[in-house]
Amino acid sequence: MSASDHVRVFEVGPRDGLQNEKLPVSLEDRFFLIAGLARAGVSDIEVGSFVREDRVPQMAGSAEINQAIVEGRLPSGTARAWSLVPNVRGMENAVKAGVKRVAVFTAASEAFNQKNIGMTIAQSLAEISKVADLARAHGIQVRGYVSTAFGCPFEGQVSASQVMGVISSLAALGIGEISIGDTIGVATPRAVEELVRPALQAHGAGAIAVHFHDTRGTALANTLRALDLGVRTVDSSAGGLGGCPFAPGATGNLATEDLLYMLQGMGLSTGVDLDAFCRTTLEFSRRINRPVSSRYLAAFASTCKS
Amino acid sequence: MSASDHVRVFEVGPRDGLQNEKLPVSLEDRFFLIAGLARAGVSDIEVGSFVREDRVPQMAGSAEINQAIVEGRLPSGTARAWSLVPNVRGMENAVKAGVKRVAVFTAASEAFNQKNIGMTIAQSLAEISKVADLARAHGIQVRGYVSTAFGCPFEGQVSASQVMGVISSLAALGIGEISIGDTIGVATPRAVEELVRPALQAHGAGAIAVHFHDTRGTALANTLRALDLGVRTVDSSAGGLGGCPFAPGATGNLATEDLLYMLQGMGLSTGVDLDAFCRTTLEFSRRINRPVSSRYLAAFASTCKS
Repeated sequence: MSASDHVRVFEVGPRDGLQNEKLPVSLEDRFFLIAGLARAGVSDIEVGSFVREDRVPQMAGSAEINQAIVEGRLPSGTARAWSLVPNVRGMENAVKAGVKRVAVFTAASEAFNQKNIGMTIAQSLAEISKVADLARAHGIQVRGYVSTAFGCPFEGQVSASQVMGVISSLAALGIGEISIGDTIGVATPRAVEELVRPALQAHGAGAIAVHFHDTRGTALANTLRALDLGVRTVDSSAGGLGGCPFAPGATGNLATEDLLYMLQGMGLSTGVDLDAFCRTTLEFSRRINRPVSSRYLAAFASTCKS
Repeated sequence: MSASDHVRVFEVGPRDGLQNEKLPVSLEDRFFLIAGLARAGVSDIEVGSFVREDRVPQMAGSAEINQAIVEGRLPSGTARAWSLVPNVRGMENAVKAGVKRVAVFTAASEAFNQKNIGMTIAQSLAEISKVADLARAHGIQVRGYVSTAFGCPFEGQVSASQVMGVISSLAALGIGEISIGDTIGVATPRAVEELVRPALQAHGAGAIAVHFHDTRGTALANTLRALDLGVRTVDSSAGGLGGCPFAPGATGNLATEDLLYMLQGMGLSTGVDLDAFCRTTLEFSRRINRPVSSRYLAAFASTCKS
């Protein structure tokens, strides 16, 4: 492998994971999760979302989480904290909370974007452009998500060229990293090749991340293929928390534990202590009394003495 | 990909899967499963095991299953039926039942072989040699399993050269196909490269199969890497049935549905109708009232009208 031996694992559990769990989790437990993952050595954590709390109660208190990180009340070690902002209003609140890194999102499928946020893709991009302007003015880093990049629950197939167009639009707004998302978990390694190869060619490995869902069991195989192609930033969720409310039967995000185990076995470094990571996720799942979907974690739990 | 676009999916659910389920399944339900999988177009099915019924009640009636296939009472379409034989005694019973294809097994780890069947690897090979002689005399095809090829629950790491030695010994006995098994589900794609590449170089793709367990979530990624290397026979289990009784926390075999979905998406042909396969496994899991671990099947079930 000619690419770097270091893989950046971008932890999305505290946001993407918990936002898509049915019941909200207490701020105390979210603090516990974030601090534990940071202590295990995770470099990037999506910690919250500046959305309307009446619509997304799971993300209530995201400002408090960010303020606690800024003030050191929530020890985040060397981890970079990220927050999702859906629009300018969210961005303004994020600025007030002192965030340094935000993530924006749009879909590659018109039907999904309409259903998910009631905007056309062009409208999303116009809103993101304003968010990016605000970010620039405040020295805030921006990451972009392109959802339904491998298929849409309403439109079916989404072409690689359509996705490439959205990626290029985001890059043109100065967004430094774009995460290509398989929202409904339909991708296979061939589809990964067809989309991720041109994306890497156009934007480079420093600008591209992948975000797979394990709905049909293919998330880790797709990740392997993305790594083969040179991707070095992979999104995943502690314990496989979360999913997508619009995707029937979706079993959620790629589990970080399974990803870390594979990377470790392949001699790729992540900076994360897998045992410490697992202990945190296990304890968190006990606290919130919900099972996790990570297979590695299940094996770890059955042999763990803790 | 220079290798063939056809992948032979070797279905082990009715034997490896059900043998490792706690409660025995009725012969009627096993007939249902085998007939349904054959109807879906599966080319190879491990249907039973000629073991002591007092020790392995899950496999009781394997002679009856084989006789029913021979007499056409169990319609198996064009599927090739295989049966496991642990020793000469089992082989003699298999011959009586009219089997045409048997599978033998040994471990790559001494400690596991001792614990599993109370023999050294050399003793296993001596027994297999006698089984192979009987097979030759009766025109019976033989497949060999090498278990714990990527790791042992008692010895830990197992070296690729140790496994290669066992594979070569089996090949020297005239065994035409050897399935390399990750019994405890510890393999990662790099370990697959280190073992499967030399195995293919020494014996060719026609002689090598892979058999992954999904204990740590890596089975499909490992399979992808094996396919990259040129492997064209993959073992898997309907619904992910089964596991390994000696492996704590083992969640069982690679699920055939997840494998078929990935292969289909990659443009690799299998001859299997995935929908028909899923309908059979779903109905079987309802009949025996046990959940399945296949993620594709869970997604299928949630959207299926049947």
